[in-house]
Amino acid sequence: MSYSQTLSDRLDSLQAANGDVLRVTSGDRTYEGTLMPHHDFSDPDVLVLKLKSGYNVGIRIDGADGIELVQRPEAPIRKQKEKTVAGDKPRIAIIGTGGTIASFVDYRTGAVHPALSTDALVSQVPELGDLAEIDSKVLFSIFSENMAPQHWQELALAVANELNKGAEAVLIPHGTDTMGYTAAALSFMLGEIPRPVILVGAQRSSDRPSSDAASNLLAAARFAIEQDVAEVCVLMHDSPSDDSFAVHFGTRVRKMHTSRRDAFHSINVAPLANISPGGVAVNHPHRRKGDVKVEARIGLEKDVVLLQYFPGMRPWHFERAISGSHGAVVAGSGLGHVNKEMVEFISKAIYGGTPVVMTSQCLNGATNLGVYDTGRDLLKAGVITVDDMLPETAYVKLMWSLANSDDVAKTMRTPIANEMSERREMHV
Amino acid sequence: MSYSQTLSDRLDSLQAANGDVLRVTSGDRTYEGTLMPHHDFSDPDVLVLKLKSGYNVGIRIDGADGIELVQRPEAPIRKQKEKTVAGDKPRIAIIGTGGTIASFVDYRTGAVHPALSTDALVSQVPELGDLAEIDSKVLFSIFSENMAPQHWQELALAVANELNKGAEAVLIPHGTDTMGYTAAALSFMLGEIPRPVILVGAQRSSDRPSSDAASNLLAAARFAIEQDVAEVCVLMHDSPSDDSFAVHFGTRVRKMHTSRRDAFHSINVAPLANISPGGVAVNHPHRRKGDVKVEARIGLEKDVVLLQYFPGMRPWHFERAISGSHGAVVAGSGLGHVNKEMVEFISKAIYGGTPVVMTSQCLNGATNLGVYDTGRDLLKAGVITVDDMLPETAYVKLMWSLANSDDVAKTMRTPIANEMSERREMHV
Repeated sequence: MSYSQTLSDRLDSLQAANGDVLRVTSGDRTYEGTLMPHHDFSDPDVLVLKLKSGYNVGIRIDGADGIELVQRPEAPIRKQKEKTVAGDKPRIAIIGTGGTIASFVDYRTGAVHPALSTDALVSQVPELGDLAEIDSKVLFSIFSENMAPQHWQELALAVANELNKGAEAVLIPHGTDTMGYTAAALSFMLGEIPRPVILVGAQRSSDRPSSDAASNLLAAARFAIEQDVAEVCVLMHDSPSDDSFAVHFGTRVRKMHTSRRDAFHSINVAPLANISPGGVAVNHPHRRKGDVKVEARIGLEKDVVLLQYFPGMRPWHFERAISGSHGAVVAGSGLGHVNKEMVEFISKAIYGGTPVVMTSQCLNGATNLGVYDTGRDLLKAGVITVDDMLPETAYVKLMWSLANSDDVAKTMRTPIANEMSERREMHV
Repeated sequence: MSYSQTLSDRLDSLQAANGDVLRVTSGDRTYEGTLMPHHDFSDPDVLVLKLKSGYNVGIRIDGADGIELVQRPEAPIRKQKEKTVAGDKPRIAIIGTGGTIASFVDYRTGAVHPALSTDALVSQVPELGDLAEIDSKVLFSIFSENMAPQHWQELALAVANELNKGAEAVLIPHGTDTMGYTAAALSFMLGEIPRPVILVGAQRSSDRPSSDAASNLLAAARFAIEQDVAEVCVLMHDSPSDDSFAVHFGTRVRKMHTSRRDAFHSINVAPLANISPGGVAVNHPHRRKGDVKVEARIGLEKDVVLLQYFPGMRPWHFERAISGSHGAVVAGSGLGHVNKEMVEFISKAIYGGTPVVMTSQCLNGATNLGVYDTGRDLLKAGVITVDDMLPETAYVKLMWSLANSDDVAKTMRTPIANEMSERREMHV
């Protein structure tokens, strides 16, 4: 707690604690709501109430304002729980990376800051301790737009370490912006795993009443323990409601909305599983839990670019973008196209040893370079096609393939982590 | 017709015409189906039957094969119709640009080639002549991955010309790959229009039984005549069935599947209209038909780039990509983010006079740079935000704004062709 002395004294005199219902009279306005935890980013003179409407309001308190204690819940709604030292409970490792799921709103500015402690996050979800021994640590504390390939490598090593130490599951709270990219990277790097690795995010910070952090984390822990699934996946809300989740293959998932809770969608496949109050529906064959030792292959060629084709793109756009790079993934138009002028430059790049992988900016559906002239010219030039793989997943896989395979084209075309459908017949 | 002499003679001896049902015995296989039109890209020894199953099959005929006439329809199913010279029918201008909608399958290779004639396309849809006087011409005959900004300019002039000559509607058959970009360009360039301008595509070439070319074109003509709407829009199938269509604002539509008929989706808004057997539901306020003279503003700054942010993107990726450009649209992560290192370089570019517009690779939802540090730093750097505008539309609008506005930031932020929602309150 870091309230100002005055505010702290006033709350103490009421014996008000977090979870109590307070009535605050400030000027001609009266607010009634549940006292929320204060945190380091809040102004020391501001207290935060969760109103009946579900919204939080930060109220600056001065001497003239009235504070009354209205009601004390029989048990605090979110009791800080001691870390469980389990007997026969499975051990779940939680590796924090930052992001909204581990962040707090600064009510002075409306801004969201990353918090430092995974413990703090876990303490908000006491139910986790009933399920498992929770072993949490912070690996990074960054927003996910700042996640870079070297973070994926460090994370893969940390996950492998936890799995090899016998964790029943590894949960990774992660910022949502680039969670799909990280999930794809872990999918390729970790290879065979004995237990599930589940990335979870939140679209609302964890101190907001509407936060999806706790429910996503808890659903991930339950899924990991109760289901015989050993995949790298992403678990997020599947609808705006609090009791419906989707579990996505790490290579098939994409953030498809800037702000909704159900922003994450599996593309080109159904989710690996849907979780609803009625139960868990697993929609795909998947790897099961086992005893395999994880040998993470974390090598990455970091000089790879991802480019979206657009009308008006000039050959020199492409040339400049790939100069100095060791690989390029193009999100072409439609079935996997670029304009005629580009073909020669793509051909040159490939001839010079820079693999070029074609995907589609449509996101949904497979590329097919056999239908139109442009496509066939690209095939002749040696472009690598990857069926219905997401551009973002292809980008990650190309980085990984360049560092881990002697035959990049073959590796790119071979499904290894649910990232693409088996090659289908060409149909026009 | 360009059958070989032998095949041509055999068909003549049967008095077989397109639309007749033939039985062909080739080796131990027998095919029965409707004779389809022969076209220049077909092998001269191949005839194409539409089977009962709905599929077309190309059969290479040699001397040993039997051909029998089974049935002659009372009226040919798709009679080539004389161009209607209308009395009081409205005049619809059709401006062909190429694409699958005006293409034929080469049954030798399974490849699709652009056809040359919009007349040929129109003749496949005789119902058009019942609705309107059809005035069709070919402006381009290219696949839409080869459409470039100069084509948009030429097309806008041609459309303006038809509208100013009194066309009741202008229909533009267009390849689907970049139809969304062209639709956005026309939306900005044409400004106020007296009658609708509707782009239509097809995901199946027009000589295939499953083609959606005819039904899309006909639905567009009907919509244009019957509804009091004067917008630039895209009309495509709304479901796999043949009687359900969606009409999209030209600035809000994106190809979201590589191959499905219902590939086109309105993003962040409902379609302008839905057409079903039950009728037409118009979902938005829109401009109505009037008498305005079109003054196309076709200026474009062509040195603009569209970049998707990806983890591992380095500042020099950005620097190289925008060097020599006069504007950049970034499809950032989440609410509109890039990594910390990029901010300085974006700031430099803006300071040097190159506007940078932020959109989201999530496609759905609005950007909001007020929530996280990265976003606020980008705002400070002068990045232009455009709410829920699609990256592709922002790219087109930036090209147009740079050539047509003295205050690019203001123009970008002001909705002018349904391309963005009115600025909403920031909410965290």
